[in-house]
Amino acid sequence: MTYVRNAWYVGAWAHEVPRNHPLGVQILNESLVIWRTDAGVLVALEDRCLHRLAPLSLGRCEGERLRCMYHGLLYDHSGRVVEIPGQNRISPNLRVRAYPVVQQHGWIWVWMGDAAAANEALVPPILGLDRPNHVFGYGQLDYLVEARLVTENLLDFSHITFLHSKSVPVSETWARERPRVREQKRGVRVDRWIRREGLYGMLNTESLVDTYLCCDFFVPGVLLITGGPYPLGTADVLEGRSPDDCREGDTFASHAVTPLTDKTARYFYMFGRRPQGDETAYEITDKECAFAEDKAMIEAQQRNIDANPNARFIATSADKAIVVFNRLIEKLLQEEHAPRSSTVCSGEAPSPVALR
Amino acid sequence: MTYVRNAWYVGAWAHEVPRNHPLGVQILNESLVIWRTDAGVLVALEDRCLHRLAPLSLGRCEGERLRCMYHGLLYDHSGRVVEIPGQNRISPNLRVRAYPVVQQHGWIWVWMGDAAAANEALVPPILGLDRPNHVFGYGQLDYLVEARLVTENLLDFSHITFLHSKSVPVSETWARERPRVREQKRGVRVDRWIRREGLYGMLNTESLVDTYLCCDFFVPGVLLITGGPYPLGTADVLEGRSPDDCREGDTFASHAVTPLTDKTARYFYMFGRRPQGDETAYEITDKECAFAEDKAMIEAQQRNIDANPNARFIATSADKAIVVFNRLIEKLLQEEHAPRSSTVCSGEAPSPVALR
Amino acid sequence: MTYVRNAWYVGAWAHEVPRNHPLGVQILNESLVIWRTDAGVLVALEDRCLHRLAPLSLGRCEGERLRCMYHGLLYDHSGRVVEIPGQNRISPNLRVRAYPVVQQHGWIWVWMGDAAAANEALVPPILGLDRPNHVFGYGQLDYLVEARLVTENLLDFSHITFLHSKSVPVSETWARERPRVREQKRGVRVDRWIRREGLYGMLNTESLVDTYLCCDFFVPGVLLITGGPYPLGTADVLEGRSPDDCREGDTFASHAVTPLTDKTARYFYMFGRRPQGDETAYEITDKECAFAEDKAMIEAQQRNIDANPNARFIATSADKAIVVFNRLIEKLLQEEHAPRSSTVCSGEAPSPVALR
Repeated sequence: MTYVRNAWYVGAWAHEVPRNHPLGVQILNESLVIWRTDAGVLVALEDRCLHRLAPLSLGRCEGERLRCMYHGLLYDHSGRVVEIPGQNRISPNLRVRAYPVVQQHGWIWVWMGDAAAANEALVPPILGLDRPNHVFGYGQLDYLVEARLVTENLLDFSHITFLHSKSVPVSETWARERPRVREQKRGVRVDRWIRREGLYGMLNTESLVDTYLCCDFFVPGVLLITGGPYPLGTADVLEGRSPDDCREGDTFASHAVTPLTDKTARYFYMFGRRPQGDETAYEITDKECAFAEDKAMIEAQQRNIDANPNARFIATSADKAIVVFNRLIEKLLQEEHAPRSSTVCSGEAPSPVALR
Repeated sequence: MTYVRNAWYVGAWAHEVPRNHPLGVQILNESLVIWRTDAGVLVALEDRCLHRLAPLSLGRCEGERLRCMYHGLLYDHSGRVVEIPGQNRISPNLRVRAYPVVQQHGWIWVWMGDAAAANEALVPPILGLDRPNHVFGYGQLDYLVEARLVTENLLDFSHITFLHSKSVPVSETWARERPRVREQKRGVRVDRWIRREGLYGMLNTESLVDTYLCCDFFVPGVLLITGGPYPLGTADVLEGRSPDDCREGDTFASHAVTPLTDKTARYFYMFGRRPQGDETAYEITDKECAFAEDKAMIEAQQRNIDANPNARFIATSADKAIVVFNRLIEKLLQEEHAPRSSTVCSGEAPSPVALR
Repeated sequence: MTYVRNAWYVGAWAHEVPRNHPLGVQILNESLVIWRTDAGVLVALEDRCLHRLAPLSLGRCEGERLRCMYHGLLYDHSGRVVEIPGQNRISPNLRVRAYPVVQQHGWIWVWMGDAAAANEALVPPILGLDRPNHVFGYGQLDYLVEARLVTENLLDFSHITFLHSKSVPVSETWARERPRVREQKRGVRVDRWIRREGLYGMLNTESLVDTYLCCDFFVPGVLLITGGPYPLGTADVLEGRSPDDCREGDTFASHAVTPLTDKTARYFYMFGRRPQGDETAYEITDKECAFAEDKAMIEAQQRNIDANPNARFIATSADKAIVVFNRLIEKLLQEEHAPRSSTVCSGEAPSPVALR
């Protein structure tokens, strides 16, 4: 699996890890236990006891420590063994790997690479469940595919016209007009106007608007979508440039794709908007129908890939953002594997669409 | 998998492919989409879009064309890409493989080898659902085994006495007397008389007859069974030869075994007979019970084969038809792989039991 | 799989093999059919017909013989083919492997190694369902793990304190005090006193006793547990030695772990005790809850092992019996593979805790 390691991966939802409740997760083929101590410290350790490789995620939190519940070895939050029941001497080398871990936007992020290079400023600047004055809808989906196929699906929304023709009936503008694609420091921005159509190009509506849509992709596979309706003619007046105000996050969608193993991926999503009445949640059933369509198609695509190891993709002009993003990943991988610079992370995350 | 490619394989039932309804199938480890255009043309293409290997069988028929519903590439029925939404230039080399395909006897047959060698006359001359003045029973069954094990099961009916002793109680004649085995051009004929027993040797009946049974096996793995009762003594009068009239297809059974992958096979079957009253279908529950017995045994056999890669079969005298048929397959395979003759198919199908 | 072959493996329960009812089982990656003739002879043969590798366990008992129900080959209980329907000549070499097999303690034991070395005296001297004046509870469980992980779980009961803290709440004495470990001829004895606690260290009880517990492990992976309560102070009076009477088997537990394949194991267990009232069975629901905890932990452990092929166990002082038992297995394996001594089995089984 060629994924960047010096990056923050979404491992879980913040609410999945209350105090005293260890959670086992997989990221990049590695098993981790994430837990929160009594004092509220978030910890991520290798999920296997040194003694006989039992999972620590089946263990028991004891204050600031985690006990393996097979034969009782006790770990502190640096990953060190601090007790072996019935044995007085403990080698100071008995230690499992600890991963840098932070909580932001309602997600728990784990740094899978060189711990010395972990930099909280590199957490993608998305919007999430911690945004005030918003209502939310969210969920997750597991794919039996390489994570890159899910990321690449998000990088080319020309598929919306066809794949989601039933769940999200939109005009062919999505497929027939190309968005603007710009590389950022650790990401790619894909933005576009849809002129004189229903909001987001939706069919079956009489009220026409100009819609601006901005997709910010961040390494390793995280997406923030913002945008919304503008008066007819705005796009032409701006000559296709981004609007200055950009909706202030009235609505947003954040997605994260985490490789669990070589051929499995977890897709996390959150949608938010300012409430329009007294609703307390954002109903996203239509979006979840679309996700089911994505999953069916991409898993079938993966089966075709596996059955035809020599077959290659043939890029069309719709693949520009994919090409740019993958080139960026390639560059970061080379930096990671270059002997000297392995602890230096390339640049900082781009600012999201201006949010005040 | 060593299967003959220059042959017609049953891929589906004709009624599974109405207009505008693409169907994904597998044959010899290859994925195909079979569809019927508005004009009624039957088409079989490689089931993966050139762009990103999405299955075309999840696509949408548009008149004479088929659109991939991932990003919208449009294919004509030769397999050529004729539209890429949002892109003006299309390389003329963008083309997926098209397979020769025909409909006969209620089945859709696909030629898996050299298209130039495809010859409709080589479709096995079985009887099927298009036979007039008959009622039918039919179905299919998927096996988790190499197709050859299912074909070989059909080539030696001595198993009926034992394996089907509960579903089809017949005398031991099936096991203790050997049928006649004769090689044909692209097949093997196995025929026999069962003298002075219940019809087909069935136990628990008082009315005794002579039964003639003729099994015609065709490459790649297709079987037509015809035959029926004759007055006591007929077999002796004919000195064991085939009867001239051979029942005119009063009843028949046609079977086809298609390798889906190396270790999976689909078994298609149809039974027909002239209606004896006002019935509109041919009840085949007893036969389907027998098929379930076959499946349980052969899948267990496959597991033993897989667990014992060095174990070899030991032929008995009951295996004669298997030996002859496999020698024929071997010969055809050699012809296929001989550089010069790769587009020449060996001989023509044998005539079935004379049907007027 | 490096398991000793010259040993008796539990293949089935005696009551699973009535007359005329062949049973297919797996041991050490090999498929066997176990059956009992009309005369009551217990037979274990290779479970695949020589003809086409069909399983004989789908066959039919015919008196002293077993018929393959695919094409009817008939086997005697030495494994020789004695009939091929429709064929007069049978090579005398047509023979499947026969395994030495005996019934003891309610289990059927199969000798997987050199038949010449089979010695019924080497069946582990456990207690079982044939013990008079006892009531019983018993069952089995299949693990998706290497058998050795289950055996090693039984060899270190320090896990009871932690893993079974909910199903069997006991004191930490199990984990914090080490038992005595002594190698025997074909096994290991692990025994211990638990002083001044509830019976077996159980929490939440007011009546305190000294408990003696004796675990006898036998090759290949069989365990007899005996023991029980003694008056307070007995352990000190005996200076920690075993009591002479050792409860006479008032209660016992026998366990057997059989490797089915490299990564699957069957766990057989039986519990017995003298009835305390008029009960006819020994209720073991609490024990089966504990087994479910074992299974969840050990299967998770196996997944961690498989995902981390380079990770090694790190022994603690609790692993002493495991180390001793594995050294014994290693020694027996070397004897098996030494050219000269392959038919000589090392020593005899140790006497169990004295049972009068």
